[in-house]
Amino acid sequence: MSGVTIYQVAREAGVSPSTVSNLLNGRPGRMLPQTRERVEQAIVRLGYRPNRAARQLRTGRIQVIGLVVPSVANPFWGTFARHLEGAALAEGYHVLLCNSERDPDRERGYVEELWADGIRGVVLCSSLPSLSHVLPLIERGLGLVAFDRTAQVGDPASLVNISVDNVVGAELAARHLLELGHRRLAFVSGSLRSVNRKERFRGFAAALEEYGLSTADAIVWSGGPEERYGDLDVADLGRTAARELIRDDRPPTAVLAINDMCALGVSAGIRDAGLRVGEDISVVGFDDIVLADLAAPPLTTIRQPLPQMAAAAFAHLRSRIENGDDASAGRSLLMRPELVVRASSGPAR
Amino acid sequence: MSGVTIYQVAREAGVSPSTVSNLLNGRPGRMLPQTRERVEQAIVRLGYRPNRAARQLRTGRIQVIGLVVPSVANPFWGTFARHLEGAALAEGYHVLLCNSERDPDRERGYVEELWADGIRGVVLCSSLPSLSHVLPLIERGLGLVAFDRTAQVGDPASLVNISVDNVVGAELAARHLLELGHRRLAFVSGSLRSVNRKERFRGFAAALEEYGLSTADAIVWSGGPEERYGDLDVADLGRTAARELIRDDRPPTAVLAINDMCALGVSAGIRDAGLRVGEDISVVGFDDIVLADLAAPPLTTIRQPLPQMAAAAFAHLRSRIENGDDASAGRSLLMRPELVVRASSGPAR
Repeated sequence: MSGVTIYQVAREAGVSPSTVSNLLNGRPGRMLPQTRERVEQAIVRLGYRPNRAARQLRTGRIQVIGLVVPSVANPFWGTFARHLEGAALAEGYHVLLCNSERDPDRERGYVEELWADGIRGVVLCSSLPSLSHVLPLIERGLGLVAFDRTAQVGDPASLVNISVDNVVGAELAARHLLELGHRRLAFVSGSLRSVNRKERFRGFAAALEEYGLSTADAIVWSGGPEERYGDLDVADLGRTAARELIRDDRPPTAVLAINDMCALGVSAGIRDAGLRVGEDISVVGFDDIVLADLAAPPLTTIRQPLPQMAAAAFAHLRSRIENGDDASAGRSLLMRPELVVRASSGPAR
Repeated sequence: MSGVTIYQVAREAGVSPSTVSNLLNGRPGRMLPQTRERVEQAIVRLGYRPNRAARQLRTGRIQVIGLVVPSVANPFWGTFARHLEGAALAEGYHVLLCNSERDPDRERGYVEELWADGIRGVVLCSSLPSLSHVLPLIERGLGLVAFDRTAQVGDPASLVNISVDNVVGAELAARHLLELGHRRLAFVSGSLRSVNRKERFRGFAAALEEYGLSTADAIVWSGGPEERYGDLDVADLGRTAARELIRDDRPPTAVLAINDMCALGVSAGIRDAGLRVGEDISVVGFDDIVLADLAAPPLTTIRQPLPQMAAAAFAHLRSRIENGDDASAGRSLLMRPELVVRASSGPAR
């Protein structure tokens, strides 16, 4: 297609052609995650793709996987889509992207249409506790990776869950604030219906407990009708929350927001009230989107290892689609998050 | 699928069911853009979709259009994808999203694969001056809307171009800075290879001329190898540019950035140098992404009417796919941009 060879990819990534070839043929061996990421980035950058026709002949399948995200308008999901596409392109697959707004009916609708179009592997970023709405298709053979969600009682046996460790991540974030001397914390989120949000709340509560506090000592703000708060509008929700929190009898000195978009909204709301983020009120987010580092002040947050998570999601689907291999069925892959301290969090006054 | 009716959509949007029905059946009549937008938002929010099977029977086509964007990791494209999806869902279409990194080989590769998968309508957000790389498919019958690009000599006759008026937009932005008393301006962009970037530069130059200045009086920063600067990395580019501009013998007092992501990077670079955005150096962006209003200080920018642009792009493709109607072939639709003044721009000192 574009005439790019694996030799060019190897040069771009600073690795040997055999390393590229091993990765392309699903033999990553003991390749370092950084190496793998570098090769994938080179593949995306140069637009390298193996011969599609040859692959399709070999596999006899449409070379497309589906990706259902809560909202492509949240840069977190855009970046995840890009990483998943990088991993998929390296194998000659395309990614069909759908936008669910965390609505189970839309999730089911999309997954059904993907199935009807011959697509046999889907990454569903749903986080809903029950997957009963897509169960019939899983039973008919759909390969499903639930992303940003951990295993739940009642999950189908073939399901693979991939998620950052949300409990550990939120606990790291809340401990960081407690270590800075904050004792009046707020947790700001949309409805706590989804698995990942519940887990983040659990991590928040665990950190409080270690410091002899309970969630009764904190302000838990999880307002707003869920339907209205997709991942785009979560920034507006954060801004609204901040305005209300500041008017509290005992306003918080620190806020843990459910994600970075929410944290950027909280920060805007704090500024709306004439207060300074990181000085008057500390703010910590979750995700480490590109904008976190560009914000003023830059946002303290919990980084998710997105490239590795995307590679793992694709590798499972590919192995299942091409080899019918269900070796990882029923597994949950939890990736370790990392606290990234920036200027939006500071000592309690 | 989800059991949502047009009555629920009508209630959600605060319009009559016949208004929803008219829009769904391609009879928008004299519907106000705001009304149309409200209905589309309600459709997206509720997940309303007309019966897909019935539609497919009627049209005999796969209900998918393609969307090729420079980078889904830039929230501008994520938001555009969401609006296009809103318009498409209302007609039972899905959107297959691809990520080109502005590479003509990848654009061609994706469009060829979409064609091979039976997709007959594509929105290509390419902005490249020549479309020769996709010409063979256009000649074979592919319906193509070039988005964020205006008509060029040598364009195929059937092409439809949809874009904001980039010249007017950039001219509005630069005039705003000149009216604030700034006389040493910088224009910051990746390579000026693409049509939209060239047009923005033209608008910038036109404003200077009205004030008796020329681009020789300004700093035009369009550095960095194009290959390395997709729309995600444009924020890094802005940050690098700001650092270099500040070290100039005559540093600028105001910067017009090629888009909001770039402007947010420029703002971060200004802060890196210990200067204040909007006070020491003014910054204006382009696009009005959600983050523009959340930034500190909030970003002055040029708003693109994305919902209307997405609706127009989909309407053309749909009419072409379903009716073979090429009434709008060869047309360029230019939408009027709007200056949104926020605190990142202030009087020259």
